[in-house]
Amino acid sequence: MNSVIDLLMNHRSIRKFKPEPLAPEQKKAILGAAQMASTSSNVQAYSIISVTDPLLKKELAEFAGNQAYVEQCGLFLVFCADLSRLRNVTENCGEIFHQNTESFLVASLDAALAAQNAAIAAESLGLGICYIGGIRNVPHKVSEALRLPELVYPVFGMCIGVPDQEPSLRPRLPMQAVVHENAYDTGAVLEGIQEYDETTRRYYRERTGGQTDLSWSRSMADKYRLPVRPHIKPFVESKGFKLD
Amino acid sequence: MNSVIDLLMNHRSIRKFKPEPLAPEQKKAILGAAQMASTSSNVQAYSIISVTDPLLKKELAEFAGNQAYVEQCGLFLVFCADLSRLRNVTENCGEIFHQNTESFLVASLDAALAAQNAAIAAESLGLGICYIGGIRNVPHKVSEALRLPELVYPVFGMCIGVPDQEPSLRPRLPMQAVVHENAYDTGAVLEGIQEYDETTRRYYRERTGGQTDLSWSRSMADKYRLPVRPHIKPFVESKGFKLD
Repeated sequence: MNSVIDLLMNHRSIRKFKPEPLAPEQKKAILGAAQMASTSSNVQAYSIISVTDPLLKKELAEFAGNQAYVEQCGLFLVFCADLSRLRNVTENCGEIFHQNTESFLVASLDAALAAQNAAIAAESLGLGICYIGGIRNVPHKVSEALRLPELVYPVFGMCIGVPDQEPSLRPRLPMQAVVHENAYDTGAVLEGIQEYDETTRRYYRERTGGQTDLSWSRSMADKYRLPVRPHIKPFVESKGFKLD
Repeated sequence: MNSVIDLLMNHRSIRKFKPEPLAPEQKKAILGAAQMASTSSNVQAYSIISVTDPLLKKELAEFAGNQAYVEQCGLFLVFCADLSRLRNVTENCGEIFHQNTESFLVASLDAALAAQNAAIAAESLGLGICYIGGIRNVPHKVSEALRLPELVYPVFGMCIGVPDQEPSLRPRLPMQAVVHENAYDTGAVLEGIQEYDETTRRYYRERTGGQTDLSWSRSMADKYRLPVRPHIKPFVESKGFKLD
């Protein structure tokens, strides 16, 4: 319908980058756009660590499970949920700071909204991006490396850089499995999953010359049959977040 | 630097809408763009309820704290974190579904990334948007009204429609209070907050003809000196989410 929607519809994660840093004005535009995202009641409960130090990028690449593109990309951003600023100003006003699961959630969501604006700004400049949830594998190490204070935790990283690959679009669930009209419709979801399992099988067969034939259901079952990152709760609590 | 970044930099929340529904192709483009946002390991752990029923919109407007624009906007979307699809496919593959704080977080973040794409798509079509966190005031009522099954909870709503107001841009924290180079710098944050308190005072004075003179610090202290939505944890647990 317009060039912005074309850009959004054309998103794919980039995992191979040319070894070129971003121009300073590109970086500034991306970070400025991130800050203009919506934020819950103007709390702006997030911070961004811009990682440009090559040694630090190398270290974070290892922490994320040896993902080389974290080291190779032009700019690596770490989006953090941040209640430390809010506690600071609340206490400076002579008040007691209250927090709970709601404030943990709000801070994490604020980080995500800012990140998605950064992603779109980067892609509009012809750059590629990839979210890196893998930094939550060893979040305490990431937190130490970036010297994050209490009440700040790393939600995810983002590689940004000049793409050195052109992956195909990854098909999404059919809309009927995700979008509902006025009320949740479980029957529509189940139908949509069946269709998507076929789509996903075809996608893998085409990308692997018939070697892989994996349904979405099976790949999700393989992921969720084991606990994923059970350390997240004790980690965020160790950073001072209260999950009451 | 380009028209996409101009669009992102020009965001403001719209809280007054003309009573015009969205064209079907606008709605489709917005929802399609939402689905193309990044998602953690392709789990797509969110659902969107598109609320078009006038009675349901009226009810949700009340639940959100009598926010009339929820009723008046052309389209009201409710973004939900959704682990029900993932549990369904995992169990259908004969496996046990594991979940914890990490999966709660991933589902909530996936909803936010999709929502921000929807927001930008809508704004690119000349529409206005406003996130509605207020639906978390009485989340169990929202959940019942939308017939959300177990393992689905409403994260926030979003008003979308033809703007009937032109609010000024709300200034954000100075970049030095939000963005750090390689390591978190608390000194820079404190300086940035001082500057922002002045900016915010000026913003309120100008918007109220001198009637209101409120610093960001004070407005945040007024918010956080009391517990905000302490029911969120028991609510999401009642929906079957495990916060271990």
